[in-house]
Amino acid sequence: MKAFFAREQLLHDQSVEFNRGELTAPYESGKRAEMLFSALEAAFPGAARDAAEFPVSHLLDIHDADYIGFLQSAFGEWIAEGRTGDAFPMVWPVHDMRGEKIPNTIVGKISHYSFEISTAITKHSWISARRSAETALSGAQELSRGANMAFSLCRPPGHHAGRGYFGGYCYLNNAGIAAQYLRNEGALRIAILDVDYHHGNGTQQIFYDRDDVFYVSVHADPDTDFPYFLGYADETGAGKGEGFNLNIPLSRGAAWPSYGEALSHALNRIGDYAPDALIVSLGVDTSAGDPLSGFLLTRDDFARMGAAIAALQRQTLFVFEGGYAINDVGGNVVSVLNGFLGAAHSTP
Amino acid sequence: MKAFFAREQLLHDQSVEFNRGELTAPYESGKRAEMLFSALEAAFPGAARDAAEFPVSHLLDIHDADYIGFLQSAFGEWIAEGRTGDAFPMVWPVHDMRGEKIPNTIVGKISHYSFEISTAITKHSWISARRSAETALSGAQELSRGANMAFSLCRPPGHHAGRGYFGGYCYLNNAGIAAQYLRNEGALRIAILDVDYHHGNGTQQIFYDRDDVFYVSVHADPDTDFPYFLGYADETGAGKGEGFNLNIPLSRGAAWPSYGEALSHALNRIGDYAPDALIVSLGVDTSAGDPLSGFLLTRDDFARMGAAIAALQRQTLFVFEGGYAINDVGGNVVSVLNGFLGAAHSTP
Repeated sequence: MKAFFAREQLLHDQSVEFNRGELTAPYESGKRAEMLFSALEAAFPGAARDAAEFPVSHLLDIHDADYIGFLQSAFGEWIAEGRTGDAFPMVWPVHDMRGEKIPNTIVGKISHYSFEISTAITKHSWISARRSAETALSGAQELSRGANMAFSLCRPPGHHAGRGYFGGYCYLNNAGIAAQYLRNEGALRIAILDVDYHHGNGTQQIFYDRDDVFYVSVHADPDTDFPYFLGYADETGAGKGEGFNLNIPLSRGAAWPSYGEALSHALNRIGDYAPDALIVSLGVDTSAGDPLSGFLLTRDDFARMGAAIAALQRQTLFVFEGGYAINDVGGNVVSVLNGFLGAAHSTP
Repeated sequence: MKAFFAREQLLHDQSVEFNRGELTAPYESGKRAEMLFSALEAAFPGAARDAAEFPVSHLLDIHDADYIGFLQSAFGEWIAEGRTGDAFPMVWPVHDMRGEKIPNTIVGKISHYSFEISTAITKHSWISARRSAETALSGAQELSRGANMAFSLCRPPGHHAGRGYFGGYCYLNNAGIAAQYLRNEGALRIAILDVDYHHGNGTQQIFYDRDDVFYVSVHADPDTDFPYFLGYADETGAGKGEGFNLNIPLSRGAAWPSYGEALSHALNRIGDYAPDALIVSLGVDTSAGDPLSGFLLTRDDFARMGAAIAALQRQTLFVFEGGYAINDVGGNVVSVLNGFLGAAHSTP
């Protein structure tokens, strides 16, 4: 197994988070990626690889060009306008307001390109997000070269980022960018299995009208949990993509019996699809004790998850997403990977 | 002149404001209403009147029933969920997310019913907002009883509140509720002139498809200023309301020459409409030195504004909206009213 990482991913460093009325230290920190990297090095000696660099065209395959331009210039515009600190959005074009308008001043622009308040653009968001996407691309390249599996330690995460928006700690849709890379390299069908606690609204949006990328997500019911306004079971795709989006929302408090059943259903559907490759959006915020979520998976459950995924017998790229109990993240990810590798009768 | 007020409007007391990435004391405070009330008492002795009470049906004439229910229960639900402090939104259904979904937990609900982050639901928001609407209704009732003019010291303000959403310090659309009251009392055509620095997105939304209420606003270009996603010149009404919405956006830095010209155009259009009554959404954040805005009106300009409005010779209700330079608000409002009364050859 190779585990890809890029240290520039640690540069992004948001000062505060305004979350549900409370000003806190950000739940999504570089520390969690550093600790995960250490855990991977300890569990899989020699597996670590530096992420390669890739042309920006891979980002433009998935994201709007104006959005990519915005991510690069936003913080500079914020400072140029005399503002200080991180660049936060403020207003959103809901309730008959005009979603198509891109205002000319930076607060309006940031607002246009976002969907929630906890996530800002910081001085280094762009470089970290780009390296995060390149970390995913490195894993996808590894698969395209014939590897059975790879792990991409992506940070910031990606699955909440849409074609033209950031939020939920995400700026670029790492899993989506990796999926498109594999398509470009000749794979006909890609499945994305999203096991993060939260629905991957960005990934769903990006592939909603496509039949060549099947998005399958097991997550907390948006009726009670972030992102609230996407991820319901009745969202099954549109146009050519009808039938190629599967949401399996679970109630807060779900533990392995119900979670495992949902995962099994998800994997059966993916098996029927017979993808050339599988990308797993691996959030481990489904862990009991995660501060941002309400599922109750244990260390052993994560090994079961890995084994169940391995049973599909597909080339598999794990792309790291959420997980905020920073002392548990490394152990839980290692458990998934060991479960996968053990069941696949492979060695680290 | 009678000036209506209700002291319960002072109860709403938001602890902090998260505005453009900065955590500040709220710009919209009870203090500004108290100081304005004192200035009115000094300038127009004996004018002050307590706002009457009105049935909730007047609110339901303008706002969705589910929204009114939400405003009453939101803070209690927030506390019941174990949260503390004021109830803030978090996520907004933009970029292909589902605007029609009303989640079951309070953070999702608050998010559904809002459009920006600076405004929370506090313990007393409902009572203050309801009394603010009743203050507007009291002024409208005064007109329906034959008065030539009245002033309603509404706080919290109203023009950013839509049929089913709060934000921009606004919860109930006071001017809209007053307009509908006058319609119910037999007026055939009402004009609302909004001179707040910011576009009244809520008022526009409420009356956008109606021809019996003509919304006319002079405000900062949303391309550069809040609320960013509504208030452009090409928004002229829809359906039966086509032609009955007029936005006159001005660039930052506008002073009386350009402002007076825009106001004159607005008043000419209102004169052509020949309304039975005029409601003025009177924000004085167009004042030079207002911390939230960028126009340069002087104390004398506000008197000119009042005189120009009086020249329409319509029954006129002034409904207080924004204005955040708290030491100037009272003087500027008094100046508008004196300009109006002087030009109308009336006495206080």
